[in-house]
Amino acid sequence: MINILFAAPPERWDFYADALHEALDAAAITACLSQDLPPEDVDYIIYAPNGPLRDFTLYTRCKAVLSLWAGVEKIVGNDTLTMPLARMVDDGLSRGMVEWVTGHVLRHHLDIDRDIHRRPGDWTPRIPPLAADRPVTILGLGTLGLECGKALAGLGFPVTGWSRTTKEVPGLTCLHGKDGLGEALKTAQIVILLLPDTPATENTLNAETLSMLPQGAVILNPGRGPLIDDDALLAALDNGHIGHATLDTFRIEPLPEDDPYWHHPKVTVTPHIASETRPGTAARVIAENIRRSEAGEPLLYLVDREAGY
Amino acid sequence: MINILFAAPPERWDFYADALHEALDAAAITACLSQDLPPEDVDYIIYAPNGPLRDFTLYTRCKAVLSLWAGVEKIVGNDTLTMPLARMVDDGLSRGMVEWVTGHVLRHHLDIDRDIHRRPGDWTPRIPPLAADRPVTILGLGTLGLECGKALAGLGFPVTGWSRTTKEVPGLTCLHGKDGLGEALKTAQIVILLLPDTPATENTLNAETLSMLPQGAVILNPGRGPLIDDDALLAALDNGHIGHATLDTFRIEPLPEDDPYWHHPKVTVTPHIASETRPGTAARVIAENIRRSEAGEPLLYLVDREAGY
Repeated sequence: MINILFAAPPERWDFYADALHEALDAAAITACLSQDLPPEDVDYIIYAPNGPLRDFTLYTRCKAVLSLWAGVEKIVGNDTLTMPLARMVDDGLSRGMVEWVTGHVLRHHLDIDRDIHRRPGDWTPRIPPLAADRPVTILGLGTLGLECGKALAGLGFPVTGWSRTTKEVPGLTCLHGKDGLGEALKTAQIVILLLPDTPATENTLNAETLSMLPQGAVILNPGRGPLIDDDALLAALDNGHIGHATLDTFRIEPLPEDDPYWHHPKVTVTPHIASETRPGTAARVIAENIRRSEAGEPLLYLVDREAGY
Repeated sequence: MINILFAAPPERWDFYADALHEALDAAAITACLSQDLPPEDVDYIIYAPNGPLRDFTLYTRCKAVLSLWAGVEKIVGNDTLTMPLARMVDDGLSRGMVEWVTGHVLRHHLDIDRDIHRRPGDWTPRIPPLAADRPVTILGLGTLGLECGKALAGLGFPVTGWSRTTKEVPGLTCLHGKDGLGEALKTAQIVILLLPDTPATENTLNAETLSMLPQGAVILNPGRGPLIDDDALLAALDNGHIGHATLDTFRIEPLPEDDPYWHHPKVTVTPHIASETRPGTAARVIAENIRRSEAGEPLLYLVDREAGY
């Protein structure tokens, strides 16, 4: 019998419980899955950073912490967490991200907002350029950045991808490092932020880098709030250099009602929905990692604690 | 010297002239391209149905009429047009259609309207199903329907395509005929109309066929206005059976300001922009057809006058 603690917020239990039981059964893992177990009896922790668990000291037998979230910046620096930590790479989550990013890229590309707000009788055609003439840049070429890049390139957008270290991806123009960032931004009509949240990526978009973008560029941030210097972005929206920002992640979530982003006419706020773990596919990743751990095989998506992701 | 009459509306001359001259040069065709030629001297007519030309009788030497539009329903029944008629199949036009269709499918799939209209402080996540759980049906599997189907299937949507006669397309569920139509509609959460406008396709969506759709289905009509029985659609929107309609084509264009579609909260009107011919790519198709005609080769995209497209 393997004891698994479900340490996400209590209200997530209903969302995940059936899927987890089903995935564990399918992997032939006999387990006790519970939201309440004596810490010293726990073999695995299924974790979400917005849950109650902060101190891992008493979980002396725990073999791994398995995050339900892709982003682990809230837990990676926790000194009490000495066991292996795996993040979630859920195919459902990647697919959801690709759909959110592709949808909002096309929304801005086609100026669908204009159609939604079109006044009766306003028969003024404005034909957008083809996707082939709309350069898009993705900052971050992890699993999510890569999948989004491939989908956008498949629709005909010229896609540039930028990452900290060198990468090569067929169909994408790949740039890296500080010099590469300026190059990646200078032609980008739409920029998508999909970098991990680390000290090195904080304020990647700031007054200086925003000024490298062409006039009227659109920002999509489905990544992490701290990637953007919020004051710099608001200033660039106000002075017209940036055309629109569609933001799904923020430094403080939920975004407080008095935050200027809620009230800015050139900002669309979405409530951290771009990439939501889907229970069925996520539960299979958790079960597979427990199976691997029990079989002495390496965990999938093990976090490099030094790199921070 | 080949005499080519440009018989689109005069204001389209600036849009096409440079591209046409360039494409004719590239095809090594020595031509006089003009908006004003004696009818008896004209070898080819570049045509748009919204232009001034209605009577082709005097164009006794004309070897072909080359339409700038994909839809030829306004000209196919013209008895004075006895020469071959080719319609436009422009890669730019197909790409534009794919982008419009994909953008509006994702807009409805993700409920982007809700995000655009979200009130400050409304941090209510509503996670859409993945594309894999959102069946989409395309009525019409011509060039445009096929390209849209492939793009949507590439994004993970289960796509059903329906056509008058049997077709087989890898990755799409293909249905045809009257029985097939009911089958194609009954699970469709989003329906895209891309049929040609012929007597046989008029009112394809009517009270009976709309009732076959699941509750809340969304209609996209980038095809042709007469494909929809407007009164039936408005009734189905009012009684809640149809969730939304995004319409790009209408029986009368421009859509009159007092048309109920402009004023219905569940309708988005776009001014026939889904698929606009792009001059560069279209001009190359025209030049290639003139080259073919001069060389005695069959024309591309020759219209079957009996079928009407």
